[in-house]
Amino acid sequence: MKDLTPTVTCGPMPASRRVWHTGELHPQIRVPMREIDLHPSAGEPPVTVYDSSGPYTDPAAEIAIDQGLPRLREGWIDARADTESYDGRHVKPEDNGFAEGARAVPEFPVRHAPRRGRDGKPVTQLAYARAGIITPEMEFVAIRENLGRKAAKAKLARDGQDWGASIPDHVTPEFVRDEITRGRAIIPANINHAELEPMIIGRNFLVKINANIGNSAVTSSMAEEVEKMVWATRWGADTVMDLSTGRNIHNIRDWILRNSPVPIGTVPLYQALEKVGGIAEDLTWEVFRDTLIEQAEQGVDYFTIHAGVRLHMIPMTVNRVTGIVSRGGSIMAKWCLHHHRESFLYEHFEEICEIARAYDVSFSLGDGLRPGCIADANDEAQFAELETLGALTQVAWKHDCQVMIEGPGHVAMHKIKANMDKQLETCGEAPFYTLGPLTTDIAPGYDHITSGIGAAMIGWFGTAMLCYVTPKEHLGLPDRDDVKVGVITYKIAAHAADLAKGHPAAQIRDDALSRARFEFRWEDQFNLALDPDTARSMHDETLPKEAHKVAHFCSMCGPKFCSMRISHDIRAEAQKEGMARMAEKFREGGALYLPKREEGA
Amino acid sequence: MKDLTPTVTCGPMPASRRVWHTGELHPQIRVPMREIDLHPSAGEPPVTVYDSSGPYTDPAAEIAIDQGLPRLREGWIDARADTESYDGRHVKPEDNGFAEGARAVPEFPVRHAPRRGRDGKPVTQLAYARAGIITPEMEFVAIRENLGRKAAKAKLARDGQDWGASIPDHVTPEFVRDEITRGRAIIPANINHAELEPMIIGRNFLVKINANIGNSAVTSSMAEEVEKMVWATRWGADTVMDLSTGRNIHNIRDWILRNSPVPIGTVPLYQALEKVGGIAEDLTWEVFRDTLIEQAEQGVDYFTIHAGVRLHMIPMTVNRVTGIVSRGGSIMAKWCLHHHRESFLYEHFEEICEIARAYDVSFSLGDGLRPGCIADANDEAQFAELETLGALTQVAWKHDCQVMIEGPGHVAMHKIKANMDKQLETCGEAPFYTLGPLTTDIAPGYDHITSGIGAAMIGWFGTAMLCYVTPKEHLGLPDRDDVKVGVITYKIAAHAADLAKGHPAAQIRDDALSRARFEFRWEDQFNLALDPDTARSMHDETLPKEAHKVAHFCSMCGPKFCSMRISHDIRAEAQKEGMARMAEKFREGGALYLPKREEGA
Repeated sequence: MKDLTPTVTCGPMPASRRVWHTGELHPQIRVPMREIDLHPSAGEPPVTVYDSSGPYTDPAAEIAIDQGLPRLREGWIDARADTESYDGRHVKPEDNGFAEGARAVPEFPVRHAPRRGRDGKPVTQLAYARAGIITPEMEFVAIRENLGRKAAKAKLARDGQDWGASIPDHVTPEFVRDEITRGRAIIPANINHAELEPMIIGRNFLVKINANIGNSAVTSSMAEEVEKMVWATRWGADTVMDLSTGRNIHNIRDWILRNSPVPIGTVPLYQALEKVGGIAEDLTWEVFRDTLIEQAEQGVDYFTIHAGVRLHMIPMTVNRVTGIVSRGGSIMAKWCLHHHRESFLYEHFEEICEIARAYDVSFSLGDGLRPGCIADANDEAQFAELETLGALTQVAWKHDCQVMIEGPGHVAMHKIKANMDKQLETCGEAPFYTLGPLTTDIAPGYDHITSGIGAAMIGWFGTAMLCYVTPKEHLGLPDRDDVKVGVITYKIAAHAADLAKGHPAAQIRDDALSRARFEFRWEDQFNLALDPDTARSMHDETLPKEAHKVAHFCSMCGPKFCSMRISHDIRAEAQKEGMARMAEKFREGGALYLPKREEGA
Repeated sequence: MKDLTPTVTCGPMPASRRVWHTGELHPQIRVPMREIDLHPSAGEPPVTVYDSSGPYTDPAAEIAIDQGLPRLREGWIDARADTESYDGRHVKPEDNGFAEGARAVPEFPVRHAPRRGRDGKPVTQLAYARAGIITPEMEFVAIRENLGRKAAKAKLARDGQDWGASIPDHVTPEFVRDEITRGRAIIPANINHAELEPMIIGRNFLVKINANIGNSAVTSSMAEEVEKMVWATRWGADTVMDLSTGRNIHNIRDWILRNSPVPIGTVPLYQALEKVGGIAEDLTWEVFRDTLIEQAEQGVDYFTIHAGVRLHMIPMTVNRVTGIVSRGGSIMAKWCLHHHRESFLYEHFEEICEIARAYDVSFSLGDGLRPGCIADANDEAQFAELETLGALTQVAWKHDCQVMIEGPGHVAMHKIKANMDKQLETCGEAPFYTLGPLTTDIAPGYDHITSGIGAAMIGWFGTAMLCYVTPKEHLGLPDRDDVKVGVITYKIAAHAADLAKGHPAAQIRDDALSRARFEFRWEDQFNLALDPDTARSMHDETLPKEAHKVAHFCSMCGPKFCSMRISHDIRAEAQKEGMARMAEKFREGGALYLPKREEGA
């Protein structure tokens, strides 16, 4: 039973408090944010930042992993009175790969009877939005996206290039509803994941990031995976995908879901494949359907479905340098080829929609034919699948299902924008969710960076969520440190994209940190950083003493060469009367001033 | 004397050999490249990559740090018969900050009498190019840029977007000469740095990277700095800037120059400031001039000169969030302000040119007013200085001096291209040399990544050389590990830019590595990587056994979920007669195939 109560990382971020903003339409909702306090000498209010970390960073919260997080959405869902509780599917040995004895991860101690839409009624945020309803989830994300800012009376001065997005000065619940109605944004929120703090994914909102976790046949345990989830959200992961394979998939997922404040995504095909002993050809619609219901009842918020991989596309991949690199895509391609028939995911997609809408599981339509190297980018197979994903988006919308579209992959910089433009056009502006893209193949061990470059760019162009890549990509399973590096790298990419798109609140944190830098408020610099611990420890490597935290210089240059210190002298000088007038005399514009020669250039 | 013979990192990169290509116009030149051998099962020739590492990676080379590298250019320079040897300036106590006894770094054991152009004659690559001469340096870089490729008869099929660059299918010595004549490229190669393996910096050549090293008043020793230089070039630094301040500047620089196979750049103002006790106001033209000659005689290949910071621009910086963040810029601004007069660098620029051209020291015109935060990007001060740098470029060209232009800094993604476009227009296409730019201010500890994003983009747009940023930026001085991470990150940015620009040889390495990946040639994947050691060790963390180096799966997914393994099965299937024809039956184009319902979507 050693795994029964894993320990996770708790406690506030430095100089930070978790605060809540309450709703107006829905006074019962409490939207969390993080306030970072600055040194009194700054004379500035705290800086409010987005907080995906859940109760784990709140010292007042009582964390009991074996009990799970408070189920704050239960009341919201009850109030809608359109769902029914039922006994639901009970765990079968094959759900956990027949794990027994010491190898078995215990079931989560608390079982909540699952809910579903009454009489197959759609209970999706899309269905509510279309009905004109503003749900608590919608007001929650509206407040969350404004980072504590109140609506300004006048139109804000904006900086940025949004490539045709329509980011408002201030996000209202009505705007959220309308974006969801348009299919341009989704709130992944399964009615059975009541612990969730809702978030929104869409081009006209803050760019989000996903962190992948999950054990494999080769490594990792439940305790590690729960901690990875908590750890990833602490550093800023907006959603987490559990890509577990091998044994104990069902039970590990339960532990993760019951303790997760963020949406959990999965690839149901992985578990279905385990149920048929890993033989792709033995997959059936019945096994897959059973797995969808199993996971929907647990509360999985979004499913990656590789329904875009069709039999006639497989020959298009045969001459690729790296063939098919998506696990799900390759599994389905093998199935199609073996049976010489169309994919059961594709043929049964409408039934899949009927299951998803009864729990509000969102779709992440998988790009099973994404390029696995620079040479294969933007090829016939990739774009043929994208066309199919566009058609499936229409089917999902017909059934009131929320949809986002997965994207590449490996793509050189000059081919990135074409991916975004084609996706917007083909998929009716459904949110794009990309893996990187990696901008070169030659740096295994640094693919968080090769992909961070592409991620920042495609995020700027309009991608709504960026799936992180860790340094271990192509080499091994990420450990705790890799997860952190991957998350921070992608927070950088997402924030750089928000700045470039001109998100009205994005630059507040940059400016606050830069002012702290200019005023030598070292502690504020660390505390405002995405990773305060690393910033502080790197500073201390060269200037460890506490006294240096107030030093008016840094170890890069030492006191004499400190440009910022000199800039302060200059600013002081500038206050002196007449300095500007003196300077006037020297305004020669472009012409060179070379008195020794009486010549210009 | 403990510092007398520092040890440096030597030995070949994994599976690699240093090979040489000889010249045709100049048969005496031997151009180094690195060949990476692949596993016999690949059935592929070795992959040739650019090699900036010098003799240190050649097992046959005898390395003696206290003797310095072979002076391979001496014969080339003699043959031109346009220079004179002279006794030159002897080291003065102030050159080393009056360091004495244990604090003193010993002089380099071998003294080479300096050379200069006879009778003040220009001996620059630009002067030769204008005279129609193809120097050994020019043929050397021409061969080097082709990465061992022979010229193809037919025009190559090219992929990429070059934003108006004119990258040839194959680089000829004539092309190099013409680009230098145009001022569009430079070969930084001081006639007193005879140990140099020449390289070229220009928009129509491979994107280059610079690594900064240097001690400060606070830390570091000569031995460390020499090793940092060797270490940086091992991982791919094309040039190294010695930004040392504090004591022993002269002697440390000598040790670095005599052992450096790459161009060394400096900021002479730093040493001049040390000579006047760190008091900016006490700087004089005479002290600065003396420092230029001191460093030119030692063999410094390029000088950063902050002559663009003019008195009338200083008021433009007063309301910035972070003022002036360039050390040199702030020092000159303080001097101008204190004396209320125009900068001596600006007033004496023509004399500076006369010194530089007598040794062929290239200029890197410093952007002393570059933005230090997102808020200050692309402002009046920054672009006013750029205009002056454009005017100074014309003056330098008039004197046959080679010039590149330094660029920002901190710039959000949507403002990066404007920097490139304005520089090309204002500075007559002189090579752009940028620091990053950093695309956000909020990630101290990860600024190699915030800047790697901007560096890749501006490199794509046309920047010729990218100055690296290490994880320690803003926090401390980089150590050996930081230098490596900075260099690898910037090699990624530069290579991503080469791919996007459509450099004809860039994708060869990506494709070779991707084929290795697809064929499970793990050792080849590691050996073709920018950092084989890190790739191998990350792989071994999860699958340590040698047997796994031939495993047809990896630890990410394990055998059952290996998409590449499945792709091989698919490829085998695809060979079977009739498969494609079978697939034909399923080509329904975009329309959905839903037999259970007889409906489309």
